Amino acid sequence: METFFTFLEKRVDDCSSLLCVGLDPHISELKEPTAASALDFCLNLVKQTAPYAAAFKPNAAFFEVFGAEGWTTLKQVIEAIDEESKRLGSMIPVILDAKRGDIASTAEAYAKSAFESLGAHCITLSPYLGHDSIESFLNYPEKGVFLLCKTSNAGSMDIQNLLVLPPAEDSPMPMYNYVAQLAQKWNTNNNIGIVVGATHPQIMSNIRASAPDLWFLTPGVGAQGGDLEVAMKAGLRKDGKGMLIPISRSISRAENPKLAAAEIRDEILRIKRELSH
Amino acid sequence: METFFTFLEKRVDDCSSLLCVGLDPHISELKEPTAASALDFCLNLVKQTAPYAAAFKPNAAFFEVFGAEGWTTLKQVIEAIDEESKRLGSMIPVILDAKRGDIASTAEAYAKSAFESLGAHCITLSPYLGHDSIESFLNYPEKGVFLLCKTSNAGSMDIQNLLVLPPAEDSPMPMYNYVAQLAQKWNTNNNIGIVVGATHPQIMSNIRASAPDLWFLTPGVGAQGGDLEVAMKAGLRKDGKGMLIPISRSISRAENPKLAAAEIRDEILRIKRELSH
Repeated sequence: METFFTFLEKRVDDCSSLLCVGLDPHISELKEPTAASALDFCLNLVKQTAPYAAAFKPNAAFFEVFGAEGWTTLKQVIEAIDEESKRLGSMIPVILDAKRGDIASTAEAYAKSAFESLGAHCITLSPYLGHDSIESFLNYPEKGVFLLCKTSNAGSMDIQNLLVLPPAEDSPMPMYNYVAQLAQKWNTNNNIGIVVGATHPQIMSNIRASAPDLWFLTPGVGAQGGDLEVAMKAGLRKDGKGMLIPISRSISRAENPKLAAAEIRDEILRIKRELSH
Repeated sequence: METFFTFLEKRVDDCSSLLCVGLDPHISELKEPTAASALDFCLNLVKQTAPYAAAFKPNAAFFEVFGAEGWTTLKQVIEAIDEESKRLGSMIPVILDAKRGDIASTAEAYAKSAFESLGAHCITLSPYLGHDSIESFLNYPEKGVFLLCKTSNAGSMDIQNLLVLPPAEDSPMPMYNYVAQLAQKWNTNNNIGIVVGATHPQIMSNIRASAPDLWFLTPGVGAQGGDLEVAMKAGLRKDGKGMLIPISRSISRAENPKLAAAEIRDEILRIKRELSH
């Protein structure tokens, strides 16, 4: 049976890319502060970058801010990705960046919203409420989740870097390592990955060591200051996969987003080749 | 200047209640699985329970699941609460239960969505991304946030009960105590409270000891099994406030929701009187 990650890996092979194009129609990037302008922004990005995109990642916040119209826009964007995928003859996964997390009965509604109503293939979730808060999402066998582990922002120090003493362990470990271990343990159906910021490459290596098989979603390359090559050295799995690299502003703000996406894809290929020697 | 918590305390005084009526239009509770039916469900609850409600708490998930129409419904429900408040001559705060949490530039959009586009007065947030993820919300001086600290679900054990070793502390403490301390430290403008599940009264006492002044939002009474009196003994502040008790199903599923809300309010008053002797 196809799981989210077999689906993603097929797309990664089809396009020889690990690039995940972020769809963040931040008001400052739009011609007008309207949902219609957000739609134009996203459709243009999808059309231009689809050949180089291993996945697309719309961030729910930038749609929600336009209320009901924003929600309609988000659904239209996901449908447009579907159509563009068919045109290319290779389905491109959509990861809804929503960072949800609620108790089970509520999580069910969020899962239904993301996977059925919107038609996303994967969602980002917070681990703070524990296993029963992600179970409703895992119950969709062909869908996936990326659990927040170590995020790219400075404030990620506050909780994620705390030393914790897990029940069955002898010595303390950083929270992010513990979350990586939980994700690895919970990943019995090949549908859990983790978010690991590219702004902390040393920590990324460390997490890769404790979760050798998991897919990482690694925000922070480009506008947030993370270096692509350093991040790939730290996070790539031995098979040259296992790392999906979301890039938003470096593409959307480029004079030619198509070219920018193509160049990033080529750079990813170059680095992969170098690392495999 | 009025802050969220001075606003809430005024309402608590006006209605002599600590009851927070949860607006959870779960599909299983609706006549039909439609946004229109969710609207009816919520408007009826608002109309019947407003006199006894210190606050209303719509949960975003149960609206999102209806897509754009659900978002319109959520906005209409918040507007209806506003109108009902005016009719009663006492404004009732709306806490959007959304459990959001993202990096700063994205958090800004979530804050704008909740506070400007929807018109909520307060929002629930996850602490996992740290201080910079809540700052955009705190920048609205008259609005409030409740940070998830110890939630009511069984899975809250996985992360929230971990022993952590905070940098400047000599001995380990449970994660929930550390989050309570952070919230207390960050609460320089009287706009941060914490979520503490009523299903763990012993832990609630413990958190009350380490955060004597903070407002608690205490889900879990009723359908989830928490006992009202036990929870109030554990969580009430010395001034008989500091605890907002969300109840959803015990009211929405009652034959007469108005009566159910009135009875819970009376029970809260009785327990408060007993505890003050």
